[in-house]
Amino acid sequence: MNKTNPGRFFEDYRPGEVIRHAVPRTVAEGERALYHALYPQRFALSSSDAFALDCGLDGAPLDDLLVFHTVFGKTVPDISLNAVANLGYAEGRFLKPVFAGDTLHAESEVIGVKENSNRRTGVVWVRTTGFDQSGAAVLTYVRWVMVRKRDPDTPSPEPVLPELADHVAAADLAVPEGLHFDGYDFDLAGEPHRAGDYEIGERIDHVDATTIEEAEHMMATRLWQNTAKVHFDATHREDGRRLIYGGHVISLARALSFNGLANAQIVAGINAGAHANPCFAGDTVRAWSEVLDRAEVGPGVGALRLRLVATRGAPFVLRGADGKYDPDVLLDLDYWALMPL
Amino acid sequence: MNKTNPGRFFEDYRPGEVIRHAVPRTVAEGERALYHALYPQRFALSSSDAFALDCGLDGAPLDDLLVFHTVFGKTVPDISLNAVANLGYAEGRFLKPVFAGDTLHAESEVIGVKENSNRRTGVVWVRTTGFDQSGAAVLTYVRWVMVRKRDPDTPSPEPVLPELADHVAAADLAVPEGLHFDGYDFDLAGEPHRAGDYEIGERIDHVDATTIEEAEHMMATRLWQNTAKVHFDATHREDGRRLIYGGHVISLARALSFNGLANAQIVAGINAGAHANPCFAGDTVRAWSEVLDRAEVGPGVGALRLRLVATRGAPFVLRGADGKYDPDVLLDLDYWALMPL
Amino acid sequence: MNKTNPGRFFEDYRPGEVIRHAVPRTVAEGERALYHALYPQRFALSSSDAFALDCGLDGAPLDDLLVFHTVFGKTVPDISLNAVANLGYAEGRFLKPVFAGDTLHAESEVIGVKENSNRRTGVVWVRTTGFDQSGAAVLTYVRWVMVRKRDPDTPSPEPVLPELADHVAAADLAVPEGLHFDGYDFDLAGEPHRAGDYEIGERIDHVDATTIEEAEHMMATRLWQNTAKVHFDATHREDGRRLIYGGHVISLARALSFNGLANAQIVAGINAGAHANPCFAGDTVRAWSEVLDRAEVGPGVGALRLRLVATRGAPFVLRGADGKYDPDVLLDLDYWALMPL
Repeated sequence: MNKTNPGRFFEDYRPGEVIRHAVPRTVAEGERALYHALYPQRFALSSSDAFALDCGLDGAPLDDLLVFHTVFGKTVPDISLNAVANLGYAEGRFLKPVFAGDTLHAESEVIGVKENSNRRTGVVWVRTTGFDQSGAAVLTYVRWVMVRKRDPDTPSPEPVLPELADHVAAADLAVPEGLHFDGYDFDLAGEPHRAGDYEIGERIDHVDATTIEEAEHMMATRLWQNTAKVHFDATHREDGRRLIYGGHVISLARALSFNGLANAQIVAGINAGAHANPCFAGDTVRAWSEVLDRAEVGPGVGALRLRLVATRGAPFVLRGADGKYDPDVLLDLDYWALMPL
Repeated sequence: MNKTNPGRFFEDYRPGEVIRHAVPRTVAEGERALYHALYPQRFALSSSDAFALDCGLDGAPLDDLLVFHTVFGKTVPDISLNAVANLGYAEGRFLKPVFAGDTLHAESEVIGVKENSNRRTGVVWVRTTGFDQSGAAVLTYVRWVMVRKRDPDTPSPEPVLPELADHVAAADLAVPEGLHFDGYDFDLAGEPHRAGDYEIGERIDHVDATTIEEAEHMMATRLWQNTAKVHFDATHREDGRRLIYGGHVISLARALSFNGLANAQIVAGINAGAHANPCFAGDTVRAWSEVLDRAEVGPGVGALRLRLVATRGAPFVLRGADGKYDPDVLLDLDYWALMPL
Repeated sequence: MNKTNPGRFFEDYRPGEVIRHAVPRTVAEGERALYHALYPQRFALSSSDAFALDCGLDGAPLDDLLVFHTVFGKTVPDISLNAVANLGYAEGRFLKPVFAGDTLHAESEVIGVKENSNRRTGVVWVRTTGFDQSGAAVLTYVRWVMVRKRDPDTPSPEPVLPELADHVAAADLAVPEGLHFDGYDFDLAGEPHRAGDYEIGERIDHVDATTIEEAEHMMATRLWQNTAKVHFDATHREDGRRLIYGGHVISLARALSFNGLANAQIVAGINAGAHANPCFAGDTVRAWSEVLDRAEVGPGVGALRLRLVATRGAPFVLRGADGKYDPDVLLDLDYWALMPL
């Protein structure tokens, strides 16, 4: 009997099925330090216990995207080992801060399937939830992937298409228990701008740039226990290059966005996301943001809905005249961040 | 007076002498995270406090090989600074789990010496033991190395050849105090296979592959405070390459073996090991295993004796017709792992 | 309104002004482990809780230079974002050990300004102090940098030149509370040499060498939240190289100096320092030391004043006949270390 995991194929997903993912993981001070070594992360709330205590939390939470990657990584062996493409994200909500010492595990419910007309692949939608050791949900999001069929001749399943919100409503964002920005120290945070200082439509060039090395993206991706071989195996692609995990680019762009959004302390929701073009070691990544919306989500707590674009080219470029992403654009992410109102 | 350590030469080893190695080291959450960033490690027991508590331990122990490397690293300045080759391992037993916050130190007893016929080198056997801060032994193993003589004309010592067991008997393996696999969650662990599901002689291709970068193996090797310059100094070899610490390949292969041996949670013994060929950055490493033996070592606790082979080539290749290791084989390790019976 | 930080220019510094730097940071076990993975650090006091307890401390302090880099990193956005050159250090004193879990923040007082005759740049002197979460000062030092003017036509300020000590007097070095070397275990520390065993004028070749990779220096520099783009952005310089943060070379040289100075456990003062030549990935770094002075600073506690030179060439080379640094010399650091008397 074959002992290794061949991954699931399109035929193996049944709407309504709940998949419990393997390998619970305790995340602690070591993961935090590596996150801060791998990305130019400077948001004060996840950098300093003292700052977080002043904001009403029990200490510095681990970076929200560290939680996202840890949960995402668990799903890879069950969801995307035979995936051709990671197509999108929706309805992402960070429900509870995660602290050093918490143990995360994850489940995914299959909420949609649709075979492609070529009959060789299909699209699978899953709603993934990450839990801590107490069983409390810390993160939930929907993603959909294109997956190979084991056998093109398998009959097509009845298509099931989930209804997904265009974006997470501000009212549905979870504000961490106890969080407040009374007496918030803008000097220590690094910039004076409140949510109200940003105009809808405003665009920010985050100025800084980072060139990615193979060792960095592989260390990050392993830390999330993401096993997709295309990230690690230089013999996998004909051109000898290793495809960088899309989440690495998300974290890099989010960290670069500190310069101009230093007070956008918490990622609270993920509305949508596209990995517009593949990223490889040697690419020099820049980021720009656009303010899409603004809301009040608690006393003194504001939220900005932001488009975050990672690019290896000039800022503010997104799509060409044909509506397609510019070849230099790596990421187009639509998310909500919490900050002082 | 010269203040730096020139290392010991063959003449400096006297059978019976006990060498106390320098630099005790506290290993904690940071070392764990780095281990998981440097190797594709996914075994649930050392990944999750919650999982380990369910198995009767006080929390997730640090990875067994992290302990091995830390102890091994301490021996390098005294044992292998002037070594020509690391010849073998025997009688390795992991005696007690190590937890974050423990402090390790190490001693080695010289148990054998034999000059080579060329009179320029000799073989030294040492039994190394690692201890925690309470003085409890956590690991013991024998290794032998070929060491240069300071002066070929020094008289040859009386040869002393230690009697070494062909392999550690299953009955001599230490089962961690409190360990049980009652209610073991195979879903969370990642695979359904118990020890009894593996047949003696069965071989497993672990499928995944990892290309090694210079930064990765150097960071790992430094973390173990292993000072052998051949790993760090690109000017040391004429070809400008840095030789990768053999233990890096052991950890890489062990981590890759998760895929097919996900429940082989604990490395309990090392029976033998050969670094068959040198490994360099740029090599893409794969692993395969062969089941050599099977035993029951406690109530519900089984053990598999496994051959673990790391290769930069095809699986299941080991030796050529001439009995020599295939040039693609990097490691041939014989070890015991504990898992649900 | 522009939201990003353009950095300060020469005109923006007023003598007497105190700048509170952004992003307080909790440093913990993860930062320690990364420090030990990135540098061949082996000093027992910061490696082992057990060893540090035996020396009268509450546990292993974080490496002194880790504290220096963390404090230094905070100053970069305010002091050296538009700096042309980092000119020197003086009056550096480590005032209190920092332990895992402490949170550091920093302030700098402008203590000198002097425009250069070209009117395009000027020199700014700042005295930077790092504090822990209790408000206690843990480190203070002066550094001066050459900074661009925003506009060459801005009127020159009145020059203010601070009076700086040639070096920190031994009597002004802070000995950590409780520190003693009674019963100090020289075997565990790695070498037998006391302060009294070193002669003034003695020079030590530290023998070992390390080749630097891009991923390593970038991970280190990010960990210190140092945002100077020249370290990360391969498109910033015309030659496509990333300039390595000078502090990376300091830590590398200090770690290499273990071999010959294993008992120089604590960096207590920084008298002066010059980054003699730029360092790039691929450089193989060696180190040598010269004993400049020797003192008793407490009962059984000695201090050595040391010149530490990092080079990519032969040991003991420093300056050419013209008095200029040899092109292979990377660092010339003058510091005080504490060790058993």
